[in-house]
Amino acid sequence: MSKRIVVALGGNALGGNLPEQMEAVKTTASAIADLIEAGHEVIIAHGNGPQVGMIQNAMMELTRSNPEKYPLAPLSVCTAMSQGYIGYDLQNRLREELLDRGIKKGVAMLLTQVEVDRNDSAFQNPTKPIGAFMTKEEADFLAETRGFVVMEDAGRGYRRAVASPKPVSIIEIETIKDLVEAGQVVIACGGGGIPVFKTEGHHLKGAAAVIDKDFAAECMAEELDADMLIILTAVEKVAINYNKPNEEKLGEIDSVTAKKYMEAGEFAPGSMLPKVEAAVKFAESKDGRTALITLLEKAKEGIEGETGTIIKK
Amino acid sequence: MSKRIVVALGGNALGGNLPEQMEAVKTTASAIADLIEAGHEVIIAHGNGPQVGMIQNAMMELTRSNPEKYPLAPLSVCTAMSQGYIGYDLQNRLREELLDRGIKKGVAMLLTQVEVDRNDSAFQNPTKPIGAFMTKEEADFLAETRGFVVMEDAGRGYRRAVASPKPVSIIEIETIKDLVEAGQVVIACGGGGIPVFKTEGHHLKGAAAVIDKDFAAECMAEELDADMLIILTAVEKVAINYNKPNEEKLGEIDSVTAKKYMEAGEFAPGSMLPKVEAAVKFAESKDGRTALITLLEKAKEGIEGETGTIIKK
Repeated sequence: MSKRIVVALGGNALGGNLPEQMEAVKTTASAIADLIEAGHEVIIAHGNGPQVGMIQNAMMELTRSNPEKYPLAPLSVCTAMSQGYIGYDLQNRLREELLDRGIKKGVAMLLTQVEVDRNDSAFQNPTKPIGAFMTKEEADFLAETRGFVVMEDAGRGYRRAVASPKPVSIIEIETIKDLVEAGQVVIACGGGGIPVFKTEGHHLKGAAAVIDKDFAAECMAEELDADMLIILTAVEKVAINYNKPNEEKLGEIDSVTAKKYMEAGEFAPGSMLPKVEAAVKFAESKDGRTALITLLEKAKEGIEGETGTIIKK
Repeated sequence: MSKRIVVALGGNALGGNLPEQMEAVKTTASAIADLIEAGHEVIIAHGNGPQVGMIQNAMMELTRSNPEKYPLAPLSVCTAMSQGYIGYDLQNRLREELLDRGIKKGVAMLLTQVEVDRNDSAFQNPTKPIGAFMTKEEADFLAETRGFVVMEDAGRGYRRAVASPKPVSIIEIETIKDLVEAGQVVIACGGGGIPVFKTEGHHLKGAAAVIDKDFAAECMAEELDADMLIILTAVEKVAINYNKPNEEKLGEIDSVTAKKYMEAGEFAPGSMLPKVEAAVKFAESKDGRTALITLLEKAKEGIEGETGTIIKK
């Protein structure tokens, strides 16, 4: 039975540099092509942690080399660049994999802006470190001249800290819908999307933030009325009592049980917690919606109910 | 009467850094919105000369800072990044301009690969200088280790020279068509597109090249069966005897006359010549197709036949 599926891919799984990325997209493309070959409509969101950090570093080096000409590129612009950087390899390889299987489908990487709420409490407390390590002097300079929040990071130097607000809506959602309806495979919300907030009139302003890609994928899945949200991660199943003698891997659970585990502190913040949180949000958003958390290689089996952690209402 | 129009925007007109770009897209968006408001279907291609140079410099600084971790990013990847860098501001501002006028239309920036022929003679003679100036030692090192062609540039140091092959086909053309048919405004072929050539099977490999954006726009206009190709430039009309006492500005001319002027050396290579060449190619590709070369601000009047240089078969 054909399903509309939003897949959230981790940025770490895409490699730390270009040679690694070109290798990583092969496995990714093969697993995604399995879903498409099985007749599903697939929309791909992905993270960009290592990549946007690298691009920010590159743009900072450029600013250092000529500060007059090149003021530091805002984080939103670096995320836009990362969508091109990652999307190119991913789109290219997925197209090739599909053609190798005799499937003629367009693969489209769409530049995507995601609205955040400027009153999101995350802006009051930026905690996500990004980009290059800096000296105290550089950090102080950016704090003073650009209003950056900087933090000392584990004795290795200073880094910028940014907010990670929740997504409110996907600006290009109608375009994504049109492409899905036309039978295209769509890559969207790369790096959680370019974070923007509404100012006066229709104006969208880039936010100094990064959006968690699992929450962005969840938001997109709701707006596309998807049947399923698949959050890919480094384990086949979510576990409670993780890494303890009584560790228990979870198969199918309902969202109430999942929330009970969340409240009991079973899942690590910044790691499994946001994934379970996004999965629960999707499962509870409408009857019949299912979230799956599993390994990339197990996605196809997971959809068939054979493995992974499935969360339903 | 509604026309399907491909517009080719210059990269230089988009500014040399981000503050300039944010200003430049205002004028651009306003002129493009005029065409959309008049009922035309608009597809936008744009150059990326200054921007891809800047991104290449940034990525080279990154490589200098950590050559082990970050091998130099290929030019194709830098072009992909430039599509995000430029597309974000252009898409954002155009969306705003349309909404300000009460026009609800999606604006989509699509990552675009453009096929080139690996046997294109341009690869035998790379002549287009790009990116940062280097010392002779750096240039020699890249020539030796990466096979780069390097050139001494006007006494200011060494730069990489790349080929500028002709576009053969637009890889994502079906996606662009689907979006245009769905009533979306599409930004595609940024920077002339990411240049790729076909290797074995369905594989596409990035080429160390840049594609002229006017030729890429022309190729896309043919494949979209557009009615009109508009090449925006710094003058209202193309001229013969340019900058001489007997200078003559051209209104409507046929393609045979245009070719006669081309052969007589009336147009500067690397400047007006490729624009006229692209315009002629489009005008001759099918009955009823028209090319227009004019200023951004005059595009709307030009379509109505009131100004600009119009080339017909």
